Amino acid sequence: MTALGVVVTDIPRLSPALVNEFSTYGVTTVHEAGGRTPGLLASYMRPISEGHSISGSAVTVLAQPGDNWMLHVAVEQCQPGDILVVAMTAPSTDGLFGDLLATSLMARGVRGLVIDAGVRDIKTLRELGFPVWSKAVSARGTVKATLGSVNIPVVCAGALVAPGDVIVADQDGVVVVPSAKAQETLEKASAREANEAQKREKLASGVLGLDMYQMREPLKQLGLRYID
Amino acid sequence: MTALGVVVTDIPRLSPALVNEFSTYGVTTVHEAGGRTPGLLASYMRPISEGHSISGSAVTVLAQPGDNWMLHVAVEQCQPGDILVVAMTAPSTDGLFGDLLATSLMARGVRGLVIDAGVRDIKTLRELGFPVWSKAVSARGTVKATLGSVNIPVVCAGALVAPGDVIVADQDGVVVVPSAKAQETLEKASAREANEAQKREKLASGVLGLDMYQMREPLKQLGLRYID
Amino acid sequence: MTALGVVVTDIPRLSPALVNEFSTYGVTTVHEAGGRTPGLLASYMRPISEGHSISGSAVTVLAQPGDNWMLHVAVEQCQPGDILVVAMTAPSTDGLFGDLLATSLMARGVRGLVIDAGVRDIKTLRELGFPVWSKAVSARGTVKATLGSVNIPVVCAGALVAPGDVIVADQDGVVVVPSAKAQETLEKASAREANEAQKREKLASGVLGLDMYQMREPLKQLGLRYID
Amino acid sequence: MTALGVVVTDIPRLSPALVNEFSTYGVTTVHEAGGRTPGLLASYMRPISEGHSISGSAVTVLAQPGDNWMLHVAVEQCQPGDILVVAMTAPSTDGLFGDLLATSLMARGVRGLVIDAGVRDIKTLRELGFPVWSKAVSARGTVKATLGSVNIPVVCAGALVAPGDVIVADQDGVVVVPSAKAQETLEKASAREANEAQKREKLASGVLGLDMYQMREPLKQLGLRYID
Amino acid sequence: MTALGVVVTDIPRLSPALVNEFSTYGVTTVHEAGGRTPGLLASYMRPISEGHSISGSAVTVLAQPGDNWMLHVAVEQCQPGDILVVAMTAPSTDGLFGDLLATSLMARGVRGLVIDAGVRDIKTLRELGFPVWSKAVSARGTVKATLGSVNIPVVCAGALVAPGDVIVADQDGVVVVPSAKAQETLEKASAREANEAQKREKLASGVLGLDMYQMREPLKQLGLRYID
Amino acid sequence: MTALGVVVTDIPRLSPALVNEFSTYGVTTVHEAGGRTPGLLASYMRPISEGHSISGSAVTVLAQPGDNWMLHVAVEQCQPGDILVVAMTAPSTDGLFGDLLATSLMARGVRGLVIDAGVRDIKTLRELGFPVWSKAVSARGTVKATLGSVNIPVVCAGALVAPGDVIVADQDGVVVVPSAKAQETLEKASAREANEAQKREKLASGVLGLDMYQMREPLKQLGLRYID
Repeated sequence: MTALGVVVTDIPRLSPALVNEFSTYGVTTVHEAGGRTPGLLASYMRPISEGHSISGSAVTVLAQPGDNWMLHVAVEQCQPGDILVVAMTAPSTDGLFGDLLATSLMARGVRGLVIDAGVRDIKTLRELGFPVWSKAVSARGTVKATLGSVNIPVVCAGALVAPGDVIVADQDGVVVVPSAKAQETLEKASAREANEAQKREKLASGVLGLDMYQMREPLKQLGLRYID
Repeated sequence: MTALGVVVTDIPRLSPALVNEFSTYGVTTVHEAGGRTPGLLASYMRPISEGHSISGSAVTVLAQPGDNWMLHVAVEQCQPGDILVVAMTAPSTDGLFGDLLATSLMARGVRGLVIDAGVRDIKTLRELGFPVWSKAVSARGTVKATLGSVNIPVVCAGALVAPGDVIVADQDGVVVVPSAKAQETLEKASAREANEAQKREKLASGVLGLDMYQMREPLKQLGLRYID
Repeated sequence: MTALGVVVTDIPRLSPALVNEFSTYGVTTVHEAGGRTPGLLASYMRPISEGHSISGSAVTVLAQPGDNWMLHVAVEQCQPGDILVVAMTAPSTDGLFGDLLATSLMARGVRGLVIDAGVRDIKTLRELGFPVWSKAVSARGTVKATLGSVNIPVVCAGALVAPGDVIVADQDGVVVVPSAKAQETLEKASAREANEAQKREKLASGVLGLDMYQMREPLKQLGLRYID
Repeated sequence: MTALGVVVTDIPRLSPALVNEFSTYGVTTVHEAGGRTPGLLASYMRPISEGHSISGSAVTVLAQPGDNWMLHVAVEQCQPGDILVVAMTAPSTDGLFGDLLATSLMARGVRGLVIDAGVRDIKTLRELGFPVWSKAVSARGTVKATLGSVNIPVVCAGALVAPGDVIVADQDGVVVVPSAKAQETLEKASAREANEAQKREKLASGVLGLDMYQMREPLKQLGLRYID
Repeated sequence: MTALGVVVTDIPRLSPALVNEFSTYGVTTVHEAGGRTPGLLASYMRPISEGHSISGSAVTVLAQPGDNWMLHVAVEQCQPGDILVVAMTAPSTDGLFGDLLATSLMARGVRGLVIDAGVRDIKTLRELGFPVWSKAVSARGTVKATLGSVNIPVVCAGALVAPGDVIVADQDGVVVVPSAKAQETLEKASAREANEAQKREKLASGVLGLDMYQMREPLKQLGLRYID
Repeated sequence: MTALGVVVTDIPRLSPALVNEFSTYGVTTVHEAGGRTPGLLASYMRPISEGHSISGSAVTVLAQPGDNWMLHVAVEQCQPGDILVVAMTAPSTDGLFGDLLATSLMARGVRGLVIDAGVRDIKTLRELGFPVWSKAVSARGTVKATLGSVNIPVVCAGALVAPGDVIVADQDGVVVVPSAKAQETLEKASAREANEAQKREKLASGVLGLDMYQMREPLKQLGLRYID
């Protein structure tokens, strides 16, 4: 499963309708809907551009530090609606990804990149409107000399990502939803969203969370004291 | 003073006129006017939006990692013109604050948030125009299970903040001015600002700092050598 | 060569035409054209504003932590077309540079600042349109008490920079080109750029990098396996 | 699979003979024998004492920051020959583990602890001779207020660990071997070890790796140049 | 209170008997006895030698980065039984302290050093048996050019330390106890210690924490599920 | 000078007598004797064993992340009395060096390793008594696929090291002395050492640094105030 030198060619994907709906909720809501289980990538994963909010099916890459060969291999495995997720065998900030690979991914309908390493050509990436979440920006070039793998389960920025899992990414970060939990998570996200609108209205009118959530009694029982 | 489970309800605040004037000078000038004494929060505290420059009275929170309960408690203690300052008992990047708490704070006239942890829903926070300085952006949710305190002196991002102290925050970071030193600091800030305008004009005309500040002689005495 | 307390006054600079041309290629292309040899500054060096892409001749400063005196000394050594490069004798995030020094540098035609420490007054720096790449933003003030040096070779953010070397900086970071290698690097950058345009077009049309770069055979020889 | 609030009680374990043999090879050899696939925990995981080299079956814990309740739950699931592996839902350096938990684990024959957080009472832990690999040492206490899980697959310090996987830990760090690959990895480790002894002898006698590994020709073909 | 350039000469100290007793409990027990309120220094503060466990009265120093002048000033303010606590106005790893200052402190009966910066000559410090907790080891020398303060309240490694507070330091780190809370904290530490011995014995005999702490019922109520 | 793919075979070395004498002074004294100019490697460079204090002639390596091929190439260029200094083209913690390379270096009389990356097999390295200063300990294996260089000037952990420079390393860290400054630095180190012994004796007898260094007057002039 975790061998180097393997490309899995036919990965299962969820229906586009299901995957697409995730982008309407965003990372924080999906994370909460998923029960706050692991799945949130580390907070050092930041977008290179403001304003993108995407969801898609994960195509995974395991790459070696200083080597971006497997990203070229992965392009061929991508379909419209996918998000490329690049994990590293060792920590790296090298610029494994730039405008040429972005052009290639866009030609295949890929929605964005999530990479636990560096990216470069970011001025062009922004002009192209190609969404990227990365650990670093770095012009450092890479070689094409060692094998990694494509479409095996990987640990990316601290989260386990299997090929075909749903990736959601926006200004709050990146979250992965295991495909088996996608339908259930989506339903909970929808319920949560409805619920939030009501709360927001109440709070805006001046109602306190202390009252709305009925927190006063449990706080008192734990011993919270008010003093002048 | 530093016990957990305590909410101090009636904190002294300086006059709004005094507090408000700080925002016209900004963090760097106030830091210099305060004699460069401690009071500057660590440089990892960054704004989530460009362009905000605020000052206000500190309402302080001490929260436990992974738990944002005390923020809800703190909302009730806030008044128009306040800035909420959240310190942690242990390092954390969790998203303790999001759009609902922001809505609640805005309903009470709070000017902004300074938090030594993470925030989330930042797209909405930006749309709301609610200013936030934080250590991280993270969708990671938190529980409501443990007590912290509100309005006790706290160490936030390396700086001691007492309730009622003046907080100044802009693109350069965040600085705290002890309330007892506010009047004096403001006067020095004003003097400094006037002084800076003159210097800026001279330097813009090509006068060298070496001459304007009369540095050549002391540099020579310390042994600075010019060689070809 | 690396003594403290030395200012070298007459440094060699390359022709403006040569230096200026580098900005048309950008950091990533120049890094690649230079054979990926050292010269790339650490990826923590980030611009404080979007959109600047500059090249210039390096005027170097070696400063002590908490002390920006040598920056004032360096201003006098600057000419139009220069970029000021500030290295530290020990790691620092202090704000050694602000709007007054920027005003002074702009009066001398300096194109930008690269500093392995902090900067402040960044709102004003952005309004002035003065480009800065730094390790941190910090209002922390500095003293003028200890000697450093100007125009000696320095290590800035992990890269060796000699006075008169070509500095190129944009959204991807900062790279230094030794003056002796400038002409050759420029030629390679030009060739690379031409080459990239063709590749981009092919990739945009759907041609795979695997085919365009003829990677399939070497990957197979290394043992890459495709499985369902 | 990754839900919070779950304890899996009957996990499969490999035969003690198989698991124990791993400790004779050590982390580096096992990592190489496993084909350098992921499985190595991040290099920040360091032992609190010198000289321990252990292997065992993983009992996994997923804990929330600031909360060590699940460690108490996990103790009951441990058997002689196990190693407790603690992952966190968010980064933490809190001291979730001390001498009382160590005493409890030792009473059950547990061989050691691997924790992506902090430990405390380390003087006593050293006296007890209980092996620990951790991210930090911290006296920071934790609460018992929130649920995590026991014996579900976790990501610990960047590596995926399933319950029952083989953990190997020594001065070089910590590596996990998926149980399905244990037998094969052990055989390769054994072969490698035999091979290394021969190499070591040759190198000690002055034979160069360049010759022993026949590197001169491939280096030449890649263009390595020797100059005076 | 926080001005630079001030030396407070007559600070209050608690009775030696009271201060000394803290060292018998150690950092973790004292932290717990103090109710886990702030007071624990950041976990990056590590001892340079094993085996020291000390307590003493804090003499505080606020120093500027790259400058150790105030440490020389502070020596004169030290008495037998004191611990020198050095805070910085900005983050630093410079070696502000070495064998000469240690010799001077030992001549005055000072028990140890806690410094949020670097130390050097550590081979000699170890030979002298002088206990040090620091952020870094660094040979980097410092100047004597700028004023700081002695015996004002400081924030050291994230914790507020007032002169005369009790400092406790051992292998688990460093904790500060405000002098007003010392007597109460000591009593709680004593009670806790007695309590721990009993627990340790039970756990060693195989009793589970789950039963000893009666955790099964609250865990069940929160919804913990056991599955095969 | 900084090209990849180059091995310089005949580097100049200083006389063994000169080089060896540096080890008697240690890193801190040599750093001071060199005028505190750059030359100190970053403080994250730590020894894997206590008690080594060495000096030697630098043989330099520039390696690519994840690739230790050039270390094998470098062995051949080493002579008795050398210290191998490994710099990276990009940040890395991979384990580029282990017991086999150490065996090979020891067979050639090399005195130690300084590497801005990771090392492994550290139990064996300690048993062999081979001194190593590194950025990390990591079992992570590396490939032999890309060219770097040997015996070109490199930036290692922030310091410029030219082949043939003197390296001094002990418990305080690592410092490099340019060969052209070695004789002068040694003389100053000797003078400093003699001087230190006198100071140590005075301070041990209770004389204050304030008096011994005659600091009271300059402190007063800068405005230091003593208050009760």
